[in-house]
Amino acid sequence: MTAPDSATADRTDELTELAKRRGFFFQSSEAYGGVSGFYVYGPEGATLKENLQDAWRDRFVRREGHMEIEAPNVMPEPVFEASGHLDGFDDMIIECPECGASHRADHLVEDNTAIEEAESIPIAEVEDLIADHDLTCPSCGTALAGEPVEDFNLMFETSIGPGSSSPGYLRPETAQGIFVEFPRLKEYARGQLPFGVAQVGAAYRNEISPRKGLVRLREFAQAELEHFVDPETDEPDLEAVADVELSLYSEARQEDEDGEPVTMTVQEAVDEGVVGSDWVAYYLGVAQGWYERIGVDMDRFRYRQHRSGELAHYAADCWDAEAEIGGDWIEITGFAYRGDYDLTKHGEHADDDFTVFKQYDDPITVERATVDPDMSYLGPEFGGDAAAVADALEALAERDRSTFEDETVTVEVDGEAKTVPVEHTGFAVEEVTEAGEHVTPHVVEPSFGVDRLVYTVLAHTLERDEAGESGDEEESEERTVLKLPPELAPTTVAVFPLMDKDGLGERAGEIAERLRRSGFEVAEDASGSIGRRYRRQDEVGTPYCVTVDYDTLEDDTVTIRDRDTTAQARVSVADLPGVVADLRAGETTVDDL
Amino acid sequence: MTAPDSATADRTDELTELAKRRGFFFQSSEAYGGVSGFYVYGPEGATLKENLQDAWRDRFVRREGHMEIEAPNVMPEPVFEASGHLDGFDDMIIECPECGASHRADHLVEDNTAIEEAESIPIAEVEDLIADHDLTCPSCGTALAGEPVEDFNLMFETSIGPGSSSPGYLRPETAQGIFVEFPRLKEYARGQLPFGVAQVGAAYRNEISPRKGLVRLREFAQAELEHFVDPETDEPDLEAVADVELSLYSEARQEDEDGEPVTMTVQEAVDEGVVGSDWVAYYLGVAQGWYERIGVDMDRFRYRQHRSGELAHYAADCWDAEAEIGGDWIEITGFAYRGDYDLTKHGEHADDDFTVFKQYDDPITVERATVDPDMSYLGPEFGGDAAAVADALEALAERDRSTFEDETVTVEVDGEAKTVPVEHTGFAVEEVTEAGEHVTPHVVEPSFGVDRLVYTVLAHTLERDEAGESGDEEESEERTVLKLPPELAPTTVAVFPLMDKDGLGERAGEIAERLRRSGFEVAEDASGSIGRRYRRQDEVGTPYCVTVDYDTLEDDTVTIRDRDTTAQARVSVADLPGVVADLRAGETTVDDL
Repeated sequence: MTAPDSATADRTDELTELAKRRGFFFQSSEAYGGVSGFYVYGPEGATLKENLQDAWRDRFVRREGHMEIEAPNVMPEPVFEASGHLDGFDDMIIECPECGASHRADHLVEDNTAIEEAESIPIAEVEDLIADHDLTCPSCGTALAGEPVEDFNLMFETSIGPGSSSPGYLRPETAQGIFVEFPRLKEYARGQLPFGVAQVGAAYRNEISPRKGLVRLREFAQAELEHFVDPETDEPDLEAVADVELSLYSEARQEDEDGEPVTMTVQEAVDEGVVGSDWVAYYLGVAQGWYERIGVDMDRFRYRQHRSGELAHYAADCWDAEAEIGGDWIEITGFAYRGDYDLTKHGEHADDDFTVFKQYDDPITVERATVDPDMSYLGPEFGGDAAAVADALEALAERDRSTFEDETVTVEVDGEAKTVPVEHTGFAVEEVTEAGEHVTPHVVEPSFGVDRLVYTVLAHTLERDEAGESGDEEESEERTVLKLPPELAPTTVAVFPLMDKDGLGERAGEIAERLRRSGFEVAEDASGSIGRRYRRQDEVGTPYCVTVDYDTLEDDTVTIRDRDTTAQARVSVADLPGVVADLRAGETTVDDL
Repeated sequence: MTAPDSATADRTDELTELAKRRGFFFQSSEAYGGVSGFYVYGPEGATLKENLQDAWRDRFVRREGHMEIEAPNVMPEPVFEASGHLDGFDDMIIECPECGASHRADHLVEDNTAIEEAESIPIAEVEDLIADHDLTCPSCGTALAGEPVEDFNLMFETSIGPGSSSPGYLRPETAQGIFVEFPRLKEYARGQLPFGVAQVGAAYRNEISPRKGLVRLREFAQAELEHFVDPETDEPDLEAVADVELSLYSEARQEDEDGEPVTMTVQEAVDEGVVGSDWVAYYLGVAQGWYERIGVDMDRFRYRQHRSGELAHYAADCWDAEAEIGGDWIEITGFAYRGDYDLTKHGEHADDDFTVFKQYDDPITVERATVDPDMSYLGPEFGGDAAAVADALEALAERDRSTFEDETVTVEVDGEAKTVPVEHTGFAVEEVTEAGEHVTPHVVEPSFGVDRLVYTVLAHTLERDEAGESGDEEESEERTVLKLPPELAPTTVAVFPLMDKDGLGERAGEIAERLRRSGFEVAEDASGSIGRRYRRQDEVGTPYCVTVDYDTLEDDTVTIRDRDTTAQARVSVADLPGVVADLRAGETTVDDL
């Protein structure tokens, strides 16, 4: 889309520096040289992430009336045999014969040719491309032509218990922890569709060569919602989001070289078929409001449809929410209509029922063909195969009752045809009353990448401007300010004594403690000028600063200052907790105090 | 202590059944046969756990003014070389030669002999005990005499990136994620001791044969606080907890066969030396109030001192908080004074500074012995060893300057003595001014087992009693009720329409939505009698139920009912959010409305 401009790119470096210096995030185990793809959230970052997750829960769990569960990070092998991750969750790897470094073969091709999406190219062709373009090892320069490209499974493997007989894997998505527990979860929903189950937690991808900091991690956090619906009867509450305007970058727009996203309402997107699934459209609408709430700059935001080649095997229609950072568009959420793929797979592999029994309004009467084979005939006739022949007859009666209209029927057992006179099959057609049917729910999945959201919110709220505190010596100083929504800010209010003497420090401590007991995150700072202390809090996004001065000792009032407008007001200490609560909730502003 | 009585033991079974049926917790991947040691928190349990963690953060992070971070679950091998987990984090394993089952050798000994703490017995002796007592495989009955007992490392191992050159481990405690980042964390504390860093998250122990549900998991949650202090000057605020009464089961009391815990205040425990560390005593006092707050029955609670044999290598004085459940005492928190063990170890292994520079009030002048070896003498004399000899001379001067009073000094290089005339060493004693010194902080660690706390709170608040709702058809019905503190309850308020007709259902839905927007966790239930709906909410610990009836449609009031007293009051819909907030905060009761 937009070319990276150097101002934005610099802002990214500035963010990384700020994140490390002020404790938002940094690479883990740096004392041991660091480990690529693993990051630590420092004190500011951990609280920001926690607040962001709480805002997600508020919107996608509480407000929607869904459930939340917490399943283990380590899961046993059969789960991933069923889910397809054991076979298909691979990246292409090529190893340098000289230096031994491993690289993603598709990235080598993308970085050195005009090809953009090499991930979907078959391995043999990627090998040819490497040879044809004389690609070399990025680490040592050795030619890679002729080196084998192989599939590398991205799951972290471990062993559960002693020995290697019970492999376990770190889950590649939190979703599987929900799907695999479906038989029990449906009980909590009293067997009624639709219902949604969410999970917020870690997921893991053993990337071959991670890069880009928080954007591509080996251990990351997801907030996933699996909404189980009856595809025939359940419909989303589209009305609630019908008028929400979306920026949609459809497949057709992407194919057009000059294509730009188009803006339309949720209702229009559904009516015009731009978004194929009503459920996906509903969540695009709900999420739009939530992104705004958490501070994503909606001028640097779009929904991008997956192109046919990108679609996962299970998904009919997928849209990604994308945010622009430093000139790149990064995926922050995937919205997928997964159909019945997941529950069907687990139903086939596991020993449990992954359907929901759907009661008819009125019981219905249906004809059912049954058999009751005469084993005294089948036994002597087919010996050890008799039971298998009986089973095959039963299956055949269910499948195609017309074959029983002849005098004999023929079934196949282990590849051999077995013919049985119909009179010995006990074939009959009965009328039975059915109260309902077993339905495999379809799954609608909004899947949020928490780390990328944290990174986006930081990148989109980081600004440089001139702060003009009236009466302050640092008037009109250039400052770095994180304009985080108050709901997300790691610290809600900072308390400063004008000086740390004459009892001002103690009074500030009491006021801070009182705010803390009211449930706010509170910082205290007594060092340097008030202006410098404002700058420190601006950098970490603290929305309100309170200064305790000599007047406080006289009349029990303090100065409260707003981060974004730098407006100040005088407030009584008694009112302070209520005032901060109202400010945070957006019910008043410092200007209006 | 107390013998398990059958009523309590039954209550444990009842809890397990309730937990599974109502969605608190259950074994994971049961559709695939289940995996021992891995549990899922269902919708009720996940919220309860989250609320418990928030209560912990409130008390141990926010109120204490500490920081919280979030570090990865997967950490690289060098971290655990330094921490000692790679070598020492083992259980004793014995494998049955017949059926191949693995067992904990020390548990076999404990279960079949009078020996109580076999874990600390050397392996060779355990092998002898197994032979002497003719112990057999619990799975198949085969004799185990003569079978080798081995160390089994309890860390889950994996590989980071392609190949096996970079082993990683799932962290066995969240603490290491804090210690390893100390060089950066101290910057966030502006280099000033004391400061505390907390982490709440998953930890892993690959147990040989886990049992006991939530009490011994392979993947579990910890809430750990590492408080870094200057051992010479920092002191805890003992005054704040001086009068808190503790039930202390000291080592001496445990050695006395009829010994019972003794009750004394924190101040008395410190004065009488029962608790050796003031810091540990401080946290015992703080935690005492917190356990009460979250619903632990303090009549089934004690602090137990580690006996000398149990003490971890790093710990000087350790106390466990223990809760009685079903006749067993289970550890729910460990309080350890870890000294400088962890930071010293990482300082030795890692390439970074794990000390804090402590400035003196006034710079001090000290004499320092230095050398400036004459390399034109050392070179010809010692050849390739010359540099090593120079280094050894420097170290010797620092260590023992008196050796330089002779005419020659002798140092050892690679086991060989090297003698140098003092005149060629450039030995001198200078006066230098020092602004401060490098201090390795000591660590005070309260380490909470979150899953065991959840289990304890459930077990201690689960009651059976008679509910007497006046005017209700199920009057004086026996009921199961979870008397969870409102702060922890997964649902704060449930809203019932008296019947789902005449607009009562819609009105109830509006009221529920309004409460949800006020930030409460709200349940709705329209099925069955009101009495039955009360029972359902009692079972999951919902403190308040609101019934919407025909009067509501007339005068906009509803009935609010208290879970514990079953008292009811009539409240206006407009006041409802405020009333629920006041009830939850303990500022009023339904009786007083």
